[in-house]
Amino acid sequence: MATAPHPLDPLSPVEISIAAQVVRDAFSNNSLVFRAITLVEPAKHSLIAYLDAERQCAPLPTAPPRTARVLYYLDKPTQFRELKVNLDERTVFAEKALDGKHAFVDAGEMKKCEKACLDDAGVQEAIKDLDLPKGAVVVCDPWTYSPDGMHDMSRRVMMCFMYMKPHSHGDANHYAFPLDIVIELDDDLKVMGIFKLPTGATDHMVPAEGNLSPFDRRKLHTTSEYHPDLVPERRSTTKPYQVVQPQGPSFKTEGNLVHWEKWRFRVGFNYREGLTIHDASFDGRQVFYRLSCSEMFVPYGDPRTPYPRKAAFDFGNNGAGVNANNLALGCDCLGHIKYFDAYHHTNDGTPIQLPRVICCHEIDDGILWKHTNYRTGNAVVARSRVLVLQTIITVSNYEYIFAFQFTQAAEINYEVRATGILSTNPIDIGDDGGVPYGTVVAPGVMAPYHQHLFALRIDPAIDGHRNSLLVEDSVPMTPTDPANAATRVGYTTTKEYVAHETPLDTDNRTGRVFKIVNENVLNPVTGTPTGYKLVPHYSQMLLADAGSLHAVRSEFAAAPVWVTQHADDELFAAGEYTVQSETGSGIASWIKSRETPRRSVRNEDIVVWHTFGTTHNPRVEDWPVMPVDKMVVTLKPVNFFTRNPALDVPISNQGDNRSVLVDGGAGCCGKPAL
Amino acid sequence: MATAPHPLDPLSPVEISIAAQVVRDAFSNNSLVFRAITLVEPAKHSLIAYLDAERQCAPLPTAPPRTARVLYYLDKPTQFRELKVNLDERTVFAEKALDGKHAFVDAGEMKKCEKACLDDAGVQEAIKDLDLPKGAVVVCDPWTYSPDGMHDMSRRVMMCFMYMKPHSHGDANHYAFPLDIVIELDDDLKVMGIFKLPTGATDHMVPAEGNLSPFDRRKLHTTSEYHPDLVPERRSTTKPYQVVQPQGPSFKTEGNLVHWEKWRFRVGFNYREGLTIHDASFDGRQVFYRLSCSEMFVPYGDPRTPYPRKAAFDFGNNGAGVNANNLALGCDCLGHIKYFDAYHHTNDGTPIQLPRVICCHEIDDGILWKHTNYRTGNAVVARSRVLVLQTIITVSNYEYIFAFQFTQAAEINYEVRATGILSTNPIDIGDDGGVPYGTVVAPGVMAPYHQHLFALRIDPAIDGHRNSLLVEDSVPMTPTDPANAATRVGYTTTKEYVAHETPLDTDNRTGRVFKIVNENVLNPVTGTPTGYKLVPHYSQMLLADAGSLHAVRSEFAAAPVWVTQHADDELFAAGEYTVQSETGSGIASWIKSRETPRRSVRNEDIVVWHTFGTTHNPRVEDWPVMPVDKMVVTLKPVNFFTRNPALDVPISNQGDNRSVLVDGGAGCCGKPAL
Repeated sequence: MATAPHPLDPLSPVEISIAAQVVRDAFSNNSLVFRAITLVEPAKHSLIAYLDAERQCAPLPTAPPRTARVLYYLDKPTQFRELKVNLDERTVFAEKALDGKHAFVDAGEMKKCEKACLDDAGVQEAIKDLDLPKGAVVVCDPWTYSPDGMHDMSRRVMMCFMYMKPHSHGDANHYAFPLDIVIELDDDLKVMGIFKLPTGATDHMVPAEGNLSPFDRRKLHTTSEYHPDLVPERRSTTKPYQVVQPQGPSFKTEGNLVHWEKWRFRVGFNYREGLTIHDASFDGRQVFYRLSCSEMFVPYGDPRTPYPRKAAFDFGNNGAGVNANNLALGCDCLGHIKYFDAYHHTNDGTPIQLPRVICCHEIDDGILWKHTNYRTGNAVVARSRVLVLQTIITVSNYEYIFAFQFTQAAEINYEVRATGILSTNPIDIGDDGGVPYGTVVAPGVMAPYHQHLFALRIDPAIDGHRNSLLVEDSVPMTPTDPANAATRVGYTTTKEYVAHETPLDTDNRTGRVFKIVNENVLNPVTGTPTGYKLVPHYSQMLLADAGSLHAVRSEFAAAPVWVTQHADDELFAAGEYTVQSETGSGIASWIKSRETPRRSVRNEDIVVWHTFGTTHNPRVEDWPVMPVDKMVVTLKPVNFFTRNPALDVPISNQGDNRSVLVDGGAGCCGKPAL
Repeated sequence: MATAPHPLDPLSPVEISIAAQVVRDAFSNNSLVFRAITLVEPAKHSLIAYLDAERQCAPLPTAPPRTARVLYYLDKPTQFRELKVNLDERTVFAEKALDGKHAFVDAGEMKKCEKACLDDAGVQEAIKDLDLPKGAVVVCDPWTYSPDGMHDMSRRVMMCFMYMKPHSHGDANHYAFPLDIVIELDDDLKVMGIFKLPTGATDHMVPAEGNLSPFDRRKLHTTSEYHPDLVPERRSTTKPYQVVQPQGPSFKTEGNLVHWEKWRFRVGFNYREGLTIHDASFDGRQVFYRLSCSEMFVPYGDPRTPYPRKAAFDFGNNGAGVNANNLALGCDCLGHIKYFDAYHHTNDGTPIQLPRVICCHEIDDGILWKHTNYRTGNAVVARSRVLVLQTIITVSNYEYIFAFQFTQAAEINYEVRATGILSTNPIDIGDDGGVPYGTVVAPGVMAPYHQHLFALRIDPAIDGHRNSLLVEDSVPMTPTDPANAATRVGYTTTKEYVAHETPLDTDNRTGRVFKIVNENVLNPVTGTPTGYKLVPHYSQMLLADAGSLHAVRSEFAAAPVWVTQHADDELFAAGEYTVQSETGSGIASWIKSRETPRRSVRNEDIVVWHTFGTTHNPRVEDWPVMPVDKMVVTLKPVNFFTRNPALDVPISNQGDNRSVLVDGGAGCCGKPAL
């Protein structure tokens, strides 16, 4: 028996089919290409009473209507359209023409672009000019076009970067052999131009014709493979390591609702953001209404044409949901693992399952708290168990591992691991030192400098929905302050409530702390508002000049912290339509649009945004596949509870943990072990 | 059969006994109190050939002589002395009078201070004036004295802060009941003064006599316990979690030598720094000569007398080695665990074992690298195994968990977790909001603001001993640069070699990277010097005014990065003798002492120091025992190898990992699970 969906459940396959059919019925004379059919989450004001009742096990009010948002091409890609479907009434509404905007790139489109490019006679001619080694297989990686002022962006343009595999193994690493050519493809999948990539520090791309040289055989090498078929020599020293939970895991799930230790939250998923967290509470108290990675931007720092066109919004342009990996037992997670499936659809609106896109499991995270009473010698230790909700996405060459980690101490870590394969450009052998925009990682292979900038969207509900953002610095008292003059060791904190929507800077030099607090609820012990603090990941912000299109397009990347008033339709920090965007449409634009009067963020329904990431100037150690680069942001209770919320965690003991004593056993220099 | 010790092995019990006897023989007419008998590590120049031969399994040259450093009181505490003992020849040399310096505080001295304080008639009178509840037990916590200009510091002074337990349970948390009195104790264990602590924002301490009030019964409470006897209600939801390694661990040890994956290093231990790492190499290549936590400083920010006296050098004043916990199987570590014991001695020079002060074990750290070929759908995943060398210290109320974590990708993380119990001061009920120097965590209990500042000493050996420090920033190209003018998205890196000994600042805003490189060894792929980079823990530096004694005493706390030329006797960032130190004797003083000429750090034997930590303005959630606050510093190869050094790690597979599929199972609101 099918139960009614929860208002925050992603669309079911049946609902996707209904939405597609309703739209098809409404446009029966048109040809339709469905780009996205996704849940419209109910407006917050319409859902609060429902969630409150549910959390309190009270009778539920009527759920808001189930609504789908449908993005589609009406007859042709330039007629990009959006509408909403009331799934209960099977009616369409809120139809919008999105002329000049572009849909995200889906897998089907990628494949079509690859084929169109490789099938083109001119491209084949250019490849012939490269005189590739016998047996070589050419591979095409289509990229969305990041505007550089050189094309009319009302037309959809794809950039096809070309690579080679010296043999036909399906999993050979073609990024090890970047070719000198690049192709522009238009929205009719026609080749617009074939160019030679720059090879010197000050070159730019030029038409391929007459400019191509044969592939330099000195670039052939065999040390850039990662697939086990091609890297047969593996260390045998790593012994198996297994996680055993004889009583099963400590979490329970019911549909998309997860209970673990004192946490209760709902898992969401959509084609764009992938994993989302909703209505998180701890020990019955509301903490966060919604948590998500809102966007990410990966701009490359090489100013030579066409490289400024490499600047990807992996969420807005590609989608974290549709690019989520199908996780596998014992590979992506270890221990007792619960998977969540998701659903998407084909371009004709047929639902498809995305199996195992989220995994849920526990890890042991070492010691949670310990104290030894030195007088009695008695040590008391509690170990930290952490619940991980993880999703992994592949965006062409790169992988990102996103995880929300819930702790018994009522903290949430948002961890991002970057891995996968570096994007590469060709570089002439012998010109290795001459190009200041990247690192040579193999013969003829340059991995260009770039940034990864993530926007974590934090929609708090600290003891309810009226919250404030308090900025605290730790500051020395002055030597002339009479209270401090004698020893000059005193310090206090400055406390400033943010009044209006604004960007804010982090500052480790002042020990700056961002507290999201509820001024209406005072902690009975400390007498201060209950709160959670944001422990930022200190990062360099966007390096591109403020006047560049990169900066215009990625507004969130200008500052590490932003606060806005909540708005249901402001989910994406760089705006709704990031593909080929040329004007500001994200977080700074929203704030600017309401400058008179400025919107208050004090004791309001607010959203806090954290921009973080890494300036990734590649190491050769990141090649041919990159050991994870970890980034962690933490949300931590600060005077929210009346004491350590993990005080009642079971005391660690050998009876439960069954650890094993090890002794020595090495032999050195061929001698037997002692 | 006893084998000869390795030159870096800590002193054996036999050697400790020999050293003590040699000193006793040399001073047969004096009474001796041994404060420390510890290994003098051989001078680096005398050890390099030995370690090189050992690493290469070549015949070993003669080992340098085994030498002990002995710190002792000659007849009385004011006659603090040091000398060295040649253990092979049983001779003493390098005798030094340390008049005006003070030995670290050991457990025996702590106990004597407690007893002397509690036995004092005046103290007992003052306690009577407090009119404590019936059955209360008074507890005394002695603290070293951080100079505040109010006493002659050639005399050793202890501050005894006083607490109460409302009942006699040995593990009741006395920090929950700080009393209003504090006692000054001199080096003859005589009470010098009894004072009432300040209670208002602008008070200072005053003589106790006539100023004490009865203990305020409103401060009595039962919610500040952590021991399981006293917190019987524990959650039962946390299911057991076990680590099984059917083929045993992947590491091997031989004495203090550890082999794990491609790492090889030697474990050291001394009474002061505790755990040290020596001669670390990866895949046969030298990386670090010595790694250690050199010092830590915990200054409190409350300027009211006597609180400026609370500022602890937990390593120099107390010792990380002698305060190391005796770790227990299944509590402090999980899985297959190898323990290392250490040895110290009593004040009369009798060796004592410090059992299980270091644990060595593996953890699974999630995904190490992954790539999915979106064309074939083939995913390749390697999981990250990490080797942890951990030690935990208790310094009165606080615990610190120090761990060197070695990764398969040739990284080393240095992780510090702060836990334990907050230091507390009394505060009047009702005066909670009035004191700006702390957080009220329970009735009448204020946890004052303070900092934890750690000095990680990194003695590198990147492909040998001549290293340089390269500072790289990522900087935007200017909009007027012709190469950048068209799109303004370009950026490059600035590279500056540090010429002379100096402090340096971190800067996340410029993406600053500190690379320790060997300019004599070029990476064959990148053409750049081989190196390791320091990924700092971004922290606020010392808040106390530069003119304060806190600042004078903790020179390393003024800047996050320092570089010096290596000197065998410069191990401790705040100097050798931190107890009651009043003048600079640490890293800044060393640099200043050789300003003409300044010492080069380019292509020299250098040491890099990283100061990091936390400004800890307590949360009530840190009470009564604090969930760990984690800090991580990473040392990461950067163009040291020719590719990902973890490329050959076994591919993750269910056959080895034996994970278990979980399904649902929650019931909500009393309804059965779906």
